[in-house]
Amino acid sequence: MKALENLKIATVENEELQNLLQYNIDQKTKPVGSLGQLEELAMQIGLIQQTTQPSLNKPVMLTIASDHEITNEKVSPVPTEITWQQCLNFLNGGGGIGFLCQHFGFDLYVVDAGVNYDFEPHPKLINKKVRKGSRNFLNEPAMTLEECNQALQNGREIVAGFADNGTNVIGFGEMGIGNSSPATALLSVYAGIPVETCTGPGCGLLPESVQRKAQVLKQAIEKLGIAQTPEENLARFGGLEIATIAGGMLEAARQRMLILVDGFISTSGFLAAYAINPAVKDYAIFSHCSHEPGHLKMIDFVGGNPVLDLKLRLGEGTGSALAFPIVQASVAMLNKMNSFTEAKVYNITE
Amino acid sequence: MKALENLKIATVENEELQNLLQYNIDQKTKPVGSLGQLEELAMQIGLIQQTTQPSLNKPVMLTIASDHEITNEKVSPVPTEITWQQCLNFLNGGGGIGFLCQHFGFDLYVVDAGVNYDFEPHPKLINKKVRKGSRNFLNEPAMTLEECNQALQNGREIVAGFADNGTNVIGFGEMGIGNSSPATALLSVYAGIPVETCTGPGCGLLPESVQRKAQVLKQAIEKLGIAQTPEENLARFGGLEIATIAGGMLEAARQRMLILVDGFISTSGFLAAYAINPAVKDYAIFSHCSHEPGHLKMIDFVGGNPVLDLKLRLGEGTGSALAFPIVQASVAMLNKMNSFTEAKVYNITE
Repeated sequence: MKALENLKIATVENEELQNLLQYNIDQKTKPVGSLGQLEELAMQIGLIQQTTQPSLNKPVMLTIASDHEITNEKVSPVPTEITWQQCLNFLNGGGGIGFLCQHFGFDLYVVDAGVNYDFEPHPKLINKKVRKGSRNFLNEPAMTLEECNQALQNGREIVAGFADNGTNVIGFGEMGIGNSSPATALLSVYAGIPVETCTGPGCGLLPESVQRKAQVLKQAIEKLGIAQTPEENLARFGGLEIATIAGGMLEAARQRMLILVDGFISTSGFLAAYAINPAVKDYAIFSHCSHEPGHLKMIDFVGGNPVLDLKLRLGEGTGSALAFPIVQASVAMLNKMNSFTEAKVYNITE
Repeated sequence: MKALENLKIATVENEELQNLLQYNIDQKTKPVGSLGQLEELAMQIGLIQQTTQPSLNKPVMLTIASDHEITNEKVSPVPTEITWQQCLNFLNGGGGIGFLCQHFGFDLYVVDAGVNYDFEPHPKLINKKVRKGSRNFLNEPAMTLEECNQALQNGREIVAGFADNGTNVIGFGEMGIGNSSPATALLSVYAGIPVETCTGPGCGLLPESVQRKAQVLKQAIEKLGIAQTPEENLARFGGLEIATIAGGMLEAARQRMLILVDGFISTSGFLAAYAINPAVKDYAIFSHCSHEPGHLKMIDFVGGNPVLDLKLRLGEGTGSALAFPIVQASVAMLNKMNSFTEAKVYNITE
């Protein structure tokens, strides 16, 4: 599989099915529209799977990890060793994503897309390391175009493997100290928003340091310039986990899988995927709106409608795991909730 | 048990426990505060149960039903027979609350607080009918004070029975055609908001009818006047399911149970309970903010922080059922998520 070869994403449009889904939803014993976003999710998932009776099979969570040499510019308050330490923690069932995946029934895999550490093999660790961390993009592109394409391809290959195994819903989380900096730069570049207006604290910068971070990002974008292609911008300002996420999301859409987009970093991967092929959006559920101020700007830019708003700012896939029961409930509504005819209730839609 | 006798609600305040809970939450392997509202819920539930390791036992959903003669004023677009038809539907596992309770593991009971119908006995139907519907409060108080007190007492007795059986988390939903009118009147009266600024469409009134509904409610409040006591206002402008909910919530707080407040009608019951004894608030989780415009005003009035915002407008307890997995996840965070010490991850809080 080449990075962006054979990337035709089917449209979910199907007027006949859409009408049938809407009819079925409206015949449920409730006022029309009264289950709000649950009804919208049910429609989306029905169209993705092209059926009136969708099912969510073998949910997988990918927590994709990498390091970032932009941390040399002191854009993160915490030591970079936390990236690999947290990966080991997740592999042992720990951390936010560890307990949430156990709680909500996700099969969790950690993907090493570019962590600056040599891991021992582990059955839940997928080794797709391109290099040990992306470069400091204040000085030079974060990745060469070849590295970036390799990461995109890696994401596609991982997801294709899970699709072959019967998974049809997949969450994309991440771990990478410093990765709110590339995510912010990508937001600025893809959405055309001045970087100083969308830079936030990430995992805990103080206000004065946020200003410094914005200056670093502004200088980097001015120095490297905005490229003509989405892949080139991803290479200049992204990160290896972000590119792997983008490739994974594109392949998931190609395979008609449900994509659970997580927080700020995961959504920056979605922005890259969307810039490469906007059809990916039909397959994406925006799990939540995070506390990082730029996240809402990302979601607004692509016209998303987040499921949760719990002021999370952890990443890892935690928001996707938390939104999953709502997604499951929307499918249960289609398959399990009875209709006016079945219930012998006065049909208020007639 | 007399309606409001022996209604001392213990404070959840416990500085030592609060510090210990905060320490435990902050020692989890994540940046401090990064699980947002999940952390706030964990703190609240720990304080309610006065433990660092809370548990959620035998969750019960009460869907409390009644009719309303204010429907004579055409304040609802649907026939009143739907109240009893939906009760039977719920008892058969149907409707929104039926499938959601099965999906999320609630034991669902339908309470007949005042339905204009003679039900056959059913193991999941709790018969607490005070009368067949509350009166048209455009003309006279919806209930006598005795009827209102009876409904409050009924709510308390039902909840006390579940508490005796080991339930420590209970959702309060409702079913009652026309009940957005009393709920709106109670919002206006308890919160001091002009009724014409907080009247909404309920289950589906057209805009011109919403104006008429507001006029009916304004006239009713002017005619009956605002009383000096919360119970008297509840009797004048409430409904039998709303009073039963209020009594149930007060008893739940007295028994240190977790209260899941649902939508607009359920929250109007909470407003009555809160007016009677504001200590009830410490035990309440506001499951969601509904699409009914007055609901946010209710939540703001009591300073609540809703878990979900899914544009639901169904009631029945559906929002409480949907929020429950998030509540469960907050408890799982306390009990299952590992700490920096356990994980051997660099402790960023030190």
